[in-house]
Amino acid sequence: MPELRKDPVLGRWIIISKERQKRPTDFIVDEPQTSGGFCPLCPGNEYSTPPEVYAFRDESTASPNDSNWKVRVVPNKFPALIIEGELDKQGEGLYDRMNGIGAHEVVIETPGHNDLFANLPIDHITLVFRAFRDRLSDLEKDSRFRYVMIFKNFGRAAGASLEHSHSQLIALPVLPRMIVSELEGSESYFRYKDRCIFCDIIRQEIQQNVRVVCQNESFITIAPFAPRTPFEMWVLPKKHSSGFCTQTNEELLLLAEIFSETLRRLDGCIPQVPYNFVLHTQPLRTGRLDHFHWHFEIVPKLTSIAGFEWGSGFYINPLPPEEAAQYLRDSLDS
Amino acid sequence: MPELRKDPVLGRWIIISKERQKRPTDFIVDEPQTSGGFCPLCPGNEYSTPPEVYAFRDESTASPNDSNWKVRVVPNKFPALIIEGELDKQGEGLYDRMNGIGAHEVVIETPGHNDLFANLPIDHITLVFRAFRDRLSDLEKDSRFRYVMIFKNFGRAAGASLEHSHSQLIALPVLPRMIVSELEGSESYFRYKDRCIFCDIIRQEIQQNVRVVCQNESFITIAPFAPRTPFEMWVLPKKHSSGFCTQTNEELLLLAEIFSETLRRLDGCIPQVPYNFVLHTQPLRTGRLDHFHWHFEIVPKLTSIAGFEWGSGFYINPLPPEEAAQYLRDSLDS
Repeated sequence: MPELRKDPVLGRWIIISKERQKRPTDFIVDEPQTSGGFCPLCPGNEYSTPPEVYAFRDESTASPNDSNWKVRVVPNKFPALIIEGELDKQGEGLYDRMNGIGAHEVVIETPGHNDLFANLPIDHITLVFRAFRDRLSDLEKDSRFRYVMIFKNFGRAAGASLEHSHSQLIALPVLPRMIVSELEGSESYFRYKDRCIFCDIIRQEIQQNVRVVCQNESFITIAPFAPRTPFEMWVLPKKHSSGFCTQTNEELLLLAEIFSETLRRLDGCIPQVPYNFVLHTQPLRTGRLDHFHWHFEIVPKLTSIAGFEWGSGFYINPLPPEEAAQYLRDSLDS
Repeated sequence: MPELRKDPVLGRWIIISKERQKRPTDFIVDEPQTSGGFCPLCPGNEYSTPPEVYAFRDESTASPNDSNWKVRVVPNKFPALIIEGELDKQGEGLYDRMNGIGAHEVVIETPGHNDLFANLPIDHITLVFRAFRDRLSDLEKDSRFRYVMIFKNFGRAAGASLEHSHSQLIALPVLPRMIVSELEGSESYFRYKDRCIFCDIIRQEIQQNVRVVCQNESFITIAPFAPRTPFEMWVLPKKHSSGFCTQTNEELLLLAEIFSETLRRLDGCIPQVPYNFVLHTQPLRTGRLDHFHWHFEIVPKLTSIAGFEWGSGFYINPLPPEEAAQYLRDSLDS
């Protein structure tokens, strides 16, 4: 059984997910990304994943775990957390722990083994976002869970271990520190100003127009004022919205449009650059929050993160976001 | 001029340290660690670094920038922050920025190009710690600075770009988020319990005796209860102490002894594993704090940090610290 443990000073939760017995040197990571050979995510190999929990298929044909899917969501075969059981929260002196209960799912974004997420048709990317939203809504019903992390690792350097285009979802019985900090920061701003800080950021970015990468009627991509890495980008809804779950299919189509353009602009600057994106949304079952604003953060894996950054949360970035935004704006127009 | 910028939501500061004009693809990091050839940190090449700010030499011979040093501290030739100038704090709408004023120094730990820090004689490691302490005390006098980060990147995977054994020091006009969070967490515990949380951790670890790696009369190394990576370790003074600066030479000798043993135990488990260590100490000019306790955190670079970890501060660790501590305890005795 995996275990959740809390750092008593920082309140940071970690998962101890013990693998089969290993020797110390087995923890050195250098396995190459699987390329060629058998792909468990490809159509025809549905039997090699756990049974799907969700899929988009042409309506005429409709049997689960068939091969004619467009987007497919399956439990992770090697989950960091497991779905069955009680949390069984316990103290151990001044420490806190609980069972590693949670969901860990893989969103297979396309049947095409060599497709790149950024190059999928807008309609198809919309289906991926609908899968995110619908799984989020479904997992919200499980009262053991407090947050659902949705993220993508693209490229080996960004942590992807399978080549076939996919993203991941982890439902957690605790709040990740990053969300706690964003909630605290945005709430403190709201108390002072009675306005959402993200709405204010969007307003200022549109007015200054130096860090805007692209936008449409509903969404905007910016290079944030204080980015951790070159080409970090945030994609935000222009209208205040605290939870990703409330997005309509029409809104998700507009999100897919801007997201696709954003990733193609990045690829235009640095072809095939590894990146991570992470959805930041409100905790489960909190209703509408006036101070929080859902968004995606896209972080390319370019500079190596050294001890300084790691230990301090203090990043050194060699590229001002104003210049990054300029590169990104120019990358599809030239 | 480099620039310090604050994320308005999280309060996280980053350094924008613009390098010479680059194209986007130049930000892909893949330069190998320099090996063989000219080493600017080697004795005889003192002219190739900026003039030293501190050094240990045999007392009989005493001219600065001579080659007969044991430990030498020089300004970084490519500093992330610069020492001359005013902070010039400014707002830009809801954003905050200031000039990138600070010190960025390199502590050359030994004249021997191929020496490993872990294998240096205890007396010599003591000199390195004395250099840390003395530079910290000196920089404390500069009222522009609020914190001094001291850290080491060992191995290319951990961010080291030079082979010759060295550590780094960055004096900052702001507090890194990690320290802000530790101060907040430990202060909140102190308000509730009237005790230092780190003192309580040490007491519990000695009593449970399952995560203790090694100890002597003054220092203890533990595998922390909620470690981010396999073999993460903390080295703490057993007696309450909030600032590294107050350590005597005798205490630093005992620290060197335990530190050396700790690193050799790690090396015994995974030879030549890349690692980072970071000193966590109190902010400059805060006097003695009852709730904070200085310590080193040693984090091996083993598992690759994927999008999930990056975006959330929520880590998945495949090795329970109790087992890590067992491996580490056994590694020098077998």
